[in-house]
Amino acid sequence: MRDVAIVGSSQTKFGKLPKSNVELFAEAAIDAINKSGLSQKDIEALFLGTVFSDFEEGQVNMAGFGGAEIGLGNIPATRFEGACASATVAVRDAAMWVASGQFDIVLAGGTERAFTMGTPFATRTFAMGGDAKYEAVTGNTFPGAFAMAARLYAVNYDIPLDKLMEMLASVTIKNHKYGALNPLGQFYGKMGDLTVEKVLSGPRIAEPLGLYDCCPFSDGGSAVVITTAEIARELTDTPVYIVGTGQGSAGALFRQKDFTKPKSRVASARMALKMAGLSPSDIDVIELHDCFTPAEAIALEAMGFYDWGTAAKASDDGDTDIDGTYPTNISGGLIGKGHPVGATGAAQVHAICEQLRGEMPQGMQVDGPEIGMTDTLGGDFGTIAHIVLSLSKRRK
Amino acid sequence: MRDVAIVGSSQTKFGKLPKSNVELFAEAAIDAINKSGLSQKDIEALFLGTVFSDFEEGQVNMAGFGGAEIGLGNIPATRFEGACASATVAVRDAAMWVASGQFDIVLAGGTERAFTMGTPFATRTFAMGGDAKYEAVTGNTFPGAFAMAARLYAVNYDIPLDKLMEMLASVTIKNHKYGALNPLGQFYGKMGDLTVEKVLSGPRIAEPLGLYDCCPFSDGGSAVVITTAEIARELTDTPVYIVGTGQGSAGALFRQKDFTKPKSRVASARMALKMAGLSPSDIDVIELHDCFTPAEAIALEAMGFYDWGTAAKASDDGDTDIDGTYPTNISGGLIGKGHPVGATGAAQVHAICEQLRGEMPQGMQVDGPEIGMTDTLGGDFGTIAHIVLSLSKRRK
Repeated sequence: MRDVAIVGSSQTKFGKLPKSNVELFAEAAIDAINKSGLSQKDIEALFLGTVFSDFEEGQVNMAGFGGAEIGLGNIPATRFEGACASATVAVRDAAMWVASGQFDIVLAGGTERAFTMGTPFATRTFAMGGDAKYEAVTGNTFPGAFAMAARLYAVNYDIPLDKLMEMLASVTIKNHKYGALNPLGQFYGKMGDLTVEKVLSGPRIAEPLGLYDCCPFSDGGSAVVITTAEIARELTDTPVYIVGTGQGSAGALFRQKDFTKPKSRVASARMALKMAGLSPSDIDVIELHDCFTPAEAIALEAMGFYDWGTAAKASDDGDTDIDGTYPTNISGGLIGKGHPVGATGAAQVHAICEQLRGEMPQGMQVDGPEIGMTDTLGGDFGTIAHIVLSLSKRRK
Repeated sequence: MRDVAIVGSSQTKFGKLPKSNVELFAEAAIDAINKSGLSQKDIEALFLGTVFSDFEEGQVNMAGFGGAEIGLGNIPATRFEGACASATVAVRDAAMWVASGQFDIVLAGGTERAFTMGTPFATRTFAMGGDAKYEAVTGNTFPGAFAMAARLYAVNYDIPLDKLMEMLASVTIKNHKYGALNPLGQFYGKMGDLTVEKVLSGPRIAEPLGLYDCCPFSDGGSAVVITTAEIARELTDTPVYIVGTGQGSAGALFRQKDFTKPKSRVASARMALKMAGLSPSDIDVIELHDCFTPAEAIALEAMGFYDWGTAAKASDDGDTDIDGTYPTNISGGLIGKGHPVGATGAAQVHAICEQLRGEMPQGMQVDGPEIGMTDTLGGDFGTIAHIVLSLSKRRK
């Protein structure tokens, strides 16, 4: 297998955008290609994540249309859908096709118009990412699932629920702090000064989760250009190598014994770290799937950064902030930057690339990270994928 | 890259089925695994095609649920969607992951409940496989697109339209002849004796296409077990090697100069044949995307079996029948066997496996084929994929 690197990455502004899914992807893709020093004719295949393009604008089979929009010709173009993990699965697959020697230069990314759907319709369609036969029919939505996760976390680790939610408020306070600094974030210039009091007294969504515990619905696009290490070194002095990828799956929640310890996420994170030859302690910067505040704690534990039941407190102690042991979601994450579901995974990869290259906006740059990791969750653990990125080809 | 082979394949009955998408896939998957001599614990990853599971039953993110249904554990499970080519793209991707050395044994397949949607709703949702911005909004559906293709074919090659439709009637007469013999086909025991007169006087769908020029909406599932050549030889005396795969894409019809000569299909077929080191004349048996009668002629030409403008006549002359030069859709094809869109591609692969192994039902076995090829079309040429299958690892 060949070494693989990212030579260009981009995302659109996240928020409410007057553009089609194809146009959102095209905007990010053209910027990523331009940054790479390559041109459209160099791209040999396209890997595109999107989740609800059919409900959003009556479009399936979108990958080819995305490619045609930017002039890619008749190359292989594949759409991936694993709910909110769609773009991460696309990036992982793209990396494999390059590593295997089948393609030298490919484009991966994602797009979504979830804000434009409106909250009630988006809530209903998003719930389709859980099991339709046993979950959605009971009225379960993802705020509901993560409300249950918060309660289970409190019980499992013997933490009073109100104390847990107070600790978890640190997650949204941190992520909104950086989201407010991110010019491409949905809440740029807003909500950078949330307080525990404000978070805890926010409008109720699904007890114990309030509005500020939840990420928003967003429109947005994202893209990365992936090539061989050899070509990357000709194009840039700072290629970001994809040194590990992982993926996992799970069935309906009733098949998952304890979804505060999601087996699909544990399996996927271990697969990615094993491929990279790294341990959790080697990771300098993290972008993970903070769809709700308890989700960030659960992800940090399942990925191996903290022992089970300790990440909420670690977050409250500032250990996941920009100068902590594991700087997490310094882009703003899903909560502070936005969550255009089909685009989120490649935007996470873009954020890690910017961190590793020292290109983050003012106030958001972690001090000299060399290795980063993304985590993306589709549904209630049905699809999980991880990407490990590094400034050097192999740690060992 | 390692050599790759299929060691088990299956499809459900096609038609109107009282089962969920996950159950349809599970039925085919368990049969394919059982036939392979392997068990669920041997499967390392799942590649699943499905198109409209959200409209059909409020389910996205289905791959993990499909895997959990048959007990696959937390392995990587990816959903592919390229309209009607979804399962072929899944099989192609699965083959690559095995060829690359990342997995030794994987499961690929597809599932769909298009019959259960009902014709009006299925017609509307299927149209989402064309470009939503420029085509579906004009009222274009796929019968409409292929009606235009028939007219363009007649004009391009100076064939009177009524004469062309008379020649193309041979496509549906042939495919229904074999569909009626196929116990797993939607029209088993029915419509085996269509006549040109009956075809031409059928209810009008989109002039010049009548009802008998069109494939049906179908429910169904399909699956194949893919492994290395080395493991395959331990399991069976008749592995079917995947010796070539190809994929292509295209934008909206207005970007395609002449969609009777679809560039995405030409590029994809050439890619697959080049990888196999084969020419069209090496292919002994074909399963291709006969969604409408003109589609079969266009596919035969774009894949290189006949010169442009000559395949309708070749079909009328019997050259694509079971004893002709290029036996095509002897399973019944989409028209005679059925077309559960997300499942179709892997079912085509299954049909070629049965042909190469000499396992087709009575009256449907081509005489001693050694190499076969599938062709699957998603939308109006937006996604195309091809698989070349052989009883020997490499022709040359």
